[in-house]
Amino acid sequence: MKKIDREKRGSSAGPGGLGTVETKSFRLPGPHRLRSGVTLAEVVVAYETYGELSPGKDNAVLVCHALSGDAHAAGFHPGESRPGWWDRMIGPGRAFDTDKYFVISANVLGGCRGSTGPASPDPATGKPYGLSFPLVTIADMVDVQKKLVNFLGVEKLLAVAGGSMGGMQVLKWGVAYPDSVAALIPIATAARHTALQIAFNEVGRQAVMSDPDWRGGDYYGQKAPARGLALARMVGHITYLSERSMERKFGRLRRPKTNGSGFAEEFEVEGYLRFQGDRFVRRFDANSYLYITRAIDNFDIGSGPALVKALSRLSDRRLLVIAFSSDWLYPPVQSKEIARAAKLNRADVTYCEITSDAGHDAFLLEAEEQRRVISRFLEVTRKRTARAGGSSGGEEAEGGKR
Amino acid sequence: MKKIDREKRGSSAGPGGLGTVETKSFRLPGPHRLRSGVTLAEVVVAYETYGELSPGKDNAVLVCHALSGDAHAAGFHPGESRPGWWDRMIGPGRAFDTDKYFVISANVLGGCRGSTGPASPDPATGKPYGLSFPLVTIADMVDVQKKLVNFLGVEKLLAVAGGSMGGMQVLKWGVAYPDSVAALIPIATAARHTALQIAFNEVGRQAVMSDPDWRGGDYYGQKAPARGLALARMVGHITYLSERSMERKFGRLRRPKTNGSGFAEEFEVEGYLRFQGDRFVRRFDANSYLYITRAIDNFDIGSGPALVKALSRLSDRRLLVIAFSSDWLYPPVQSKEIARAAKLNRADVTYCEITSDAGHDAFLLEAEEQRRVISRFLEVTRKRTARAGGSSGGEEAEGGKR
Repeated sequence: MKKIDREKRGSSAGPGGLGTVETKSFRLPGPHRLRSGVTLAEVVVAYETYGELSPGKDNAVLVCHALSGDAHAAGFHPGESRPGWWDRMIGPGRAFDTDKYFVISANVLGGCRGSTGPASPDPATGKPYGLSFPLVTIADMVDVQKKLVNFLGVEKLLAVAGGSMGGMQVLKWGVAYPDSVAALIPIATAARHTALQIAFNEVGRQAVMSDPDWRGGDYYGQKAPARGLALARMVGHITYLSERSMERKFGRLRRPKTNGSGFAEEFEVEGYLRFQGDRFVRRFDANSYLYITRAIDNFDIGSGPALVKALSRLSDRRLLVIAFSSDWLYPPVQSKEIARAAKLNRADVTYCEITSDAGHDAFLLEAEEQRRVISRFLEVTRKRTARAGGSSGGEEAEGGKR
Repeated sequence: MKKIDREKRGSSAGPGGLGTVETKSFRLPGPHRLRSGVTLAEVVVAYETYGELSPGKDNAVLVCHALSGDAHAAGFHPGESRPGWWDRMIGPGRAFDTDKYFVISANVLGGCRGSTGPASPDPATGKPYGLSFPLVTIADMVDVQKKLVNFLGVEKLLAVAGGSMGGMQVLKWGVAYPDSVAALIPIATAARHTALQIAFNEVGRQAVMSDPDWRGGDYYGQKAPARGLALARMVGHITYLSERSMERKFGRLRRPKTNGSGFAEEFEVEGYLRFQGDRFVRRFDANSYLYITRAIDNFDIGSGPALVKALSRLSDRRLLVIAFSSDWLYPPVQSKEIARAAKLNRADVTYCEITSDAGHDAFLLEAEEQRRVISRFLEVTRKRTARAGGSSGGEEAEGGKR
């Protein structure tokens, strides 16, 4: 039976993990212009790195986090018992092998875990932005990542990888900076949200905005809209599990109720969702939740012929598109559409559908299956990139297979 | 393209409808004892009837409503432009043909549309029960329906039919009163909730209980927890549509935002969900929402061998089990399990899976397909019941096909 509890995701406590890591901070050297035209006077990016950058600076891999993630992707912060969110995947011998690769992870623009977002002070007023923070897009997040990557001395990434919203950033790298990356690994993601995917996010936003403590986003220094944000997270968690994993984990088990309100007894699944909701509010800013889900819903690199066109600059890039059989939030059909569009652009595409009961959460949990495909994919990518002397003619050198 | 908007569900405005109808009220002659042992001193049931009871009193059909339904199943109330919730299905020439059958519809115990529930005054205090209202079950709802049916002069129903929670009441009739009904028509329902189904209901309950206006259920005479209840309804609506119908109806269409909070623009699907949520709170009591969803989650007539045993008294009953291909809230597999368990008890079972894009809402919308199978099913049931002289030997008389 697979473990699907995020509580148990830490696998690096034992041998092979990264040990203690720290989050660093990078202040962009000047104002940052968003795609909307609005300029942010100050942008700070929280980031972590694992492993060493090679002398040729050709082994850097950027990993991009999902809605609720942050820069702390792997290893442990001092005094904490839970490792980073992708610790199963990053470390010596893992999918992103830190003995071979220099792994970069950054908190997204609009986030609340060290990067500039709605909770940050507006330099013009000294007070938190709140809803006066400009709308940001996935492209804006990627633009900021690009500046960070350059700051770290990397001109061309070996790969960009990420699941869920992280996968959208991966795709945006392919659209916006195809010459700055050799390979893309979009996982459990979509080229754009369907109405159903928007609907789930919207319920979460409404939950936050319906909380009287939200006060139009101007709650800093006061009580945060914890109830609304917890509710939003509960809705999210339903979509992260598969029906089967939820049934196996909880079924119709009951237990005495742990809080006072409502009826005396509850089902296990109710307690689980409440626990997840309550824990989330301790580490996440409600306005960031609004901005980031809005960025996700607005993300749209097209469908059908438009998607093929959007990916037209991927013709000599390598893509590993990963989906999970029981993921009903980002079902495999959406990953297949990405793979197909890239293929029509003569990219070197591998589509891999991993059989798993873990639902959308599988991208965080199915470490062994992902390790096998990703480690091999990165090895081949590096070999080809090296052979091609860093140019984009790798495929030609191998015999002009295009 | 099928219409999936409940706004448009009214089809009886034209010829063939029932015209004006009225809700009546039945006060149970004495105290009513719940299955839990708790006694309610006073129980009132709101109900409507359509068509005429035959002299032989053998043409009565009870229809049972879902979570948000009420006694007003068909026809129009004076001055209202929307007909009852199953108007497409009830009327002259419709699935439940009022030229042939005497159709009974009642608001459930625990409801808020005329039947006794948490918003009703507690005779002991004169004040609304609120959370001091006892927990009720699907069985309790059915017990009250049985008393109403007897009051109306019906000893044996020709059929009991209903979708979603209505289908659970149908199944409970088969378990509790198999001798009082000739045929059962459970539609788009389940013998018990899975963890996923419980989870969706729990998010709705948490939305209500997180609203500060809920005040532990003691909000009568004050501001109702409208924001929480609207949120609960939004979550529900996501599960009532299919992914495909939602995509076809809304896709990624946008429009200017209709309320002030949050961002300026919104997707159509967001406006739709908010509209549904806001409308719902005008007609529904938040505590009833808690009690009824709890009754649904607690409903459990078993699975596997236990379900077969629970349905053991259906051996000479007719069952028409209906499911819809795109219903992901109550997927066809759950209906098949019901059909199989009844079949193993030698019931006369027809399983009908209707191909539809309308999701769970299909039970309200796919009137023509349902009319075909239900009208024929009822005709045959009545013929056999008549032949058997009202006894349960109808199948034997036809040649002992069992």
